[in-house]
Amino acid sequence: VMGHVSLVGAGPGDPALLTRKAVMRLRAADLVLYDALVGERVLRLARRAQRFFVGKRAGRQALSQTAIHAVMIRAAKRGRRVVRLKGGDPFVFGRGGEEAIALGAAGVPFDIVPGISSAVAAPALAGIPVTHRGLASAFLVVSGHDEDAFAASIGQLAPNGLTLVVLMGVGRRAPLAARLIDRGWSRETPAAIVADASLPQQQVWRGTLDDLASDGARLEGDGPATIVIGAVAALALITVDAQVATAERARRRS
Amino acid sequence: VMGHVSLVGAGPGDPALLTRKAVMRLRAADLVLYDALVGERVLRLARRAQRFFVGKRAGRQALSQTAIHAVMIRAAKRGRRVVRLKGGDPFVFGRGGEEAIALGAAGVPFDIVPGISSAVAAPALAGIPVTHRGLASAFLVVSGHDEDAFAASIGQLAPNGLTLVVLMGVGRRAPLAARLIDRGWSRETPAAIVADASLPQQQVWRGTLDDLASDGARLEGDGPATIVIGAVAALALITVDAQVATAERARRRS
Repeated sequence: VMGHVSLVGAGPGDPALLTRKAVMRLRAADLVLYDALVGERVLRLARRAQRFFVGKRAGRQALSQTAIHAVMIRAAKRGRRVVRLKGGDPFVFGRGGEEAIALGAAGVPFDIVPGISSAVAAPALAGIPVTHRGLASAFLVVSGHDEDAFAASIGQLAPNGLTLVVLMGVGRRAPLAARLIDRGWSRETPAAIVADASLPQQQVWRGTLDDLASDGARLEGDGPATIVIGAVAALALITVDAQVATAERARRRS
Repeated sequence: VMGHVSLVGAGPGDPALLTRKAVMRLRAADLVLYDALVGERVLRLARRAQRFFVGKRAGRQALSQTAIHAVMIRAAKRGRRVVRLKGGDPFVFGRGGEEAIALGAAGVPFDIVPGISSAVAAPALAGIPVTHRGLASAFLVVSGHDEDAFAASIGQLAPNGLTLVVLMGVGRRAPLAARLIDRGWSRETPAAIVADASLPQQQVWRGTLDDLASDGARLEGDGPATIVIGAVAALALITVDAQVATAERARRRS
């Protein structure tokens, strides 16, 4: 009997931000291939599954992309239910497209379970809406992994009326911000960094593009982080997540 | 006792794509204020709640934005657990920011529960990754609600290497596509429309920017639709969602 592969988004980290479908797929899985951004509390839902770490550790890839394809295909052909679990959403810089092509070419049935992407959720959990009437009517999501690709993507983009969300760029925040300033973005453009979004250790830094360019943004740890640049980054919508959660628990007990 | 408000994203429509946290908030809710894009199967999860439709019907808003704020604030101040339920994500063209500001100003505790946005999930469920190595290293999400605002957002954006996702623009697809062509986008740029993403009646149309501009895209019904423009729209990753779901159910029974 043929198994299958589910390309599943794990969301930003909090297991409560998994979709119900992701939980269903994890519970049924025989094998889970997971990345560095997926936490233990999420993995624990895959009770019956063998776990296989395929991400980056200390800058080195545990398994090449081709090897990941081979493992998934072999396991599915042996009748196993495979979950390919990725932080955020599988199709937002997740190489999910390449995996889907490989699975399709091998005749392995697969499905796609979208996840909550940090591109929108990380700012939201820091009280920053990526769109807001009068401030931003569009948002551009770009990887900060490669400086030249970043510069090409931002192109002639005008900063007004748009929110720029940079994923995987926190380590290069100073040169990336410098590129924007070079292209005419105001040094005073509000900016924020949200690290470890949705997790207990979530950190938020707020400042300006100039602060980023001069390496003035201080963050502890090296968790995944999302950079937001644009007028919305100055909005400080106070959210009281913890109080609401505590009140809910108290009510449930009474 | 003070209640609270949760700004909750309902995702694209399939109740399995709700987050666990969204389900928790719905189950505990006393009052749910919901939009036109939220379906009955999602609402049913709010078993104990009074339901209040505040969206658009036949082009008219059932309740003004200010009135929505007033209802939420009054109910929370009377100790009720209010869910403000929005299709997709509350901060992606959802006016969630305005509601957060109003709640904060009124001293009402609130939290934000991100949802799966159609901006990424609708293309994904049609087998289109918004990013893909060699094809798109960034994506711009823009509203098609207003033609001039759309034109301002796309600015001098170069079409290469970028995916353009247009929400709320399906009714204006011909003039929006014409604006892109006017700005130098190739008529042959691949394009797709995904309507009613994640629902049983999901429809996918594929073609080119030129087809869109000449009003050649045929769709049935008037459900919410997402337009994707860029090289990735030509990827036809075959997904076999239904087969995987059926296999899972069969295994669970045996």
